[in-house]
Amino acid sequence: MSRRRQIYEGKAKILYEGPEPGTIIQYFKDDATAFNAQKRGTIQGKGVINNRISEYVFTRLSHIGIPTHFIRRLNMREQLVRQVEIIPIEVVVRNVAAGSISTRLGIPEGEPLPHTLIEYYYKDDALGDPLIAEEHIACFGWATNEEMQDISSMAIRVNDFLCGMFAAIGIRLVDFKLEFGRMWDGDYSRVILADEISPDGCRLWDILTGEKLDKDRFRRDLGGEEEAYQEVARRLGLLQDEGVTSEVFDLSKHRKLRGK
Amino acid sequence: MSRRRQIYEGKAKILYEGPEPGTIIQYFKDDATAFNAQKRGTIQGKGVINNRISEYVFTRLSHIGIPTHFIRRLNMREQLVRQVEIIPIEVVVRNVAAGSISTRLGIPEGEPLPHTLIEYYYKDDALGDPLIAEEHIACFGWATNEEMQDISSMAIRVNDFLCGMFAAIGIRLVDFKLEFGRMWDGDYSRVILADEISPDGCRLWDILTGEKLDKDRFRRDLGGEEEAYQEVARRLGLLQDEGVTSEVFDLSKHRKLRGK
Ligand SMILES: Nc1ncnc2c1ncn2[C@@H]1O[C@H](COP(=O)(O)OP(=O)(O)OP(=O)(O)O)[C@@H](O)[C@H]1O
Ligand SMILES: Nc1ncnc2c1ncn2[C@@H]1O[C@H](COP(=O)(O)OP(=O)(O)OP(=O)(O)O)[C@@H](O)[C@H]1O
Ligand SMILES: [Mg+2]
Ligand SMILES: [Mg+2]
Repeated sequence: MSRRRQIYEGKAKILYEGPEPGTIIQYFKDDATAFNAQKRGTIQGKGVINNRISEYVFTRLSHIGIPTHFIRRLNMREQLVRQVEIIPIEVVVRNVAAGSISTRLGIPEGEPLPHTLIEYYYKDDALGDPLIAEEHIACFGWATNEEMQDISSMAIRVNDFLCGMFAAIGIRLVDFKLEFGRMWDGDYSRVILADEISPDGCRLWDILTGEKLDKDRFRRDLGGEEEAYQEVARRLGLLQDEGVTSEVFDLSKHRKLRGK
Repeated sequence: MSRRRQIYEGKAKILYEGPEPGTIIQYFKDDATAFNAQKRGTIQGKGVINNRISEYVFTRLSHIGIPTHFIRRLNMREQLVRQVEIIPIEVVVRNVAAGSISTRLGIPEGEPLPHTLIEYYYKDDALGDPLIAEEHIACFGWATNEEMQDISSMAIRVNDFLCGMFAAIGIRLVDFKLEFGRMWDGDYSRVILADEISPDGCRLWDILTGEKLDKDRFRRDLGGEEEAYQEVARRLGLLQDEGVTSEVFDLSKHRKLRGK
């Protein structure tokens, strides 16, 4: 394990070369960043929970026919995935106004959008991941029209699936971010879902209390981020799993959610 | 003339009730603003020149079949136009990177874009006219899909026409902004080109020297803005016109273009 080559260290994960060509290992860290890494911190046990939640979600998405990079979870903090050429676009799906769209367009947080909205951001930390339109994507060749078709229809399907999944556990899916990648097969490539789906890249509000169960607790200094991430995993029935409980419960010392 | 009712005073123009229902009078001021009106100033004679240039361009656009609000010029600073319901979208067409796209996406100023790019901005001064995508327009109902079809195809045609027109007078059309409006006829409406086309809303660079002949002279404190606007009118053959020369030449005292 210690001999394998590190490919990339990001803000939340480290990528290592996988055991076979075309595979990589995603290692989930506890590091948390916000506002384009101007704010930095740690959410104890987050890596373990995100690894588990992402495994759960990607596995079930593949069952409804969404192609994903996920192969299998290796241990508490690592999962084996197919290596892709990441398309430099962050795909944000919004059901309810919150965060940047509220600021940019003056829509009060919590206001349901007239209908589901897909936004695209150019994935470039130095530029602060600016909002872009399909016209920019076509102009600069960041993705083909066919790829954008696949991406937008997959994004809508993922949203439908996640809305149902979270509704079933008393959580409102406000918005979330997806990344897609190209998998090459000779001269052809197809687009598959990559990266992760976890409370790091979703806004999740308790349906009854409105309590935030996501990274906004960290962004907005609300406290209780460890407990929020755990609560999502717990409601999904993932805290019983061997290999997740141990580290997470050790770290969290069974604290209860505090603050609002 | 003094009896007519003012409908709206904008940053560059005043709108008055027109002589017949469904018409309004656009009065072109010399006031100049930049950076969402944080910078304010005056460009002597600008209103006269913009009124004349906009008349010239809208008239010729109607000759190639673009429907516009323009009816006729009334005097040096006023034109009669059809009243429309302005669609709250600023349509920006770019041929070469400059200004906000260079900053936002890190593309050096002056770099030709791989192909012509249409951008949409939500027309709301309080929000700073944020960039939007067609998804936002559809989500919030700012225009219908059919209207956006008409708008984008007209924008492309206007760009082709203006590229040719400016090329013929040694000017490179870097980018420009359009506004469109709805004209109602009973329950039906159609989209027509509204507002103005002038050096206030275009980036115009001399093909040989690269000299800026537009509002960037004001935005960037380059000086010589009066002369730049006049130079565009002169190359279009508009300074010979009765009613334009007199006031403009009085004000400008035949200064030459200075600065770079
Ligand atoms: N299957 C995959 N193949 C290759 N790269 C991937 C794959 N899945 C995700 N990635 C990339 O791996 C990195 C994951 O690391 P991390 O999420 O920490 O990055 P980050 O610091 O958030 O930076 P970014 O803003 O690029 O996401 C991201 O750059 C992501 O695009
Ligand atoms: N045919 C028309 N009918 C109605 N309104 C029009 C028409 N043509 C232009 N307008 C509107 O008239 C106003 C023109 O004034 P001006 O250009 O000074 O506005 P502004 O201060 O630049 O503000 P804005 O940011 O709204 O353009 C604009 O709001 C424009 O949208
Ligand atoms: Mg990431
Ligand atoms: Mg205006």
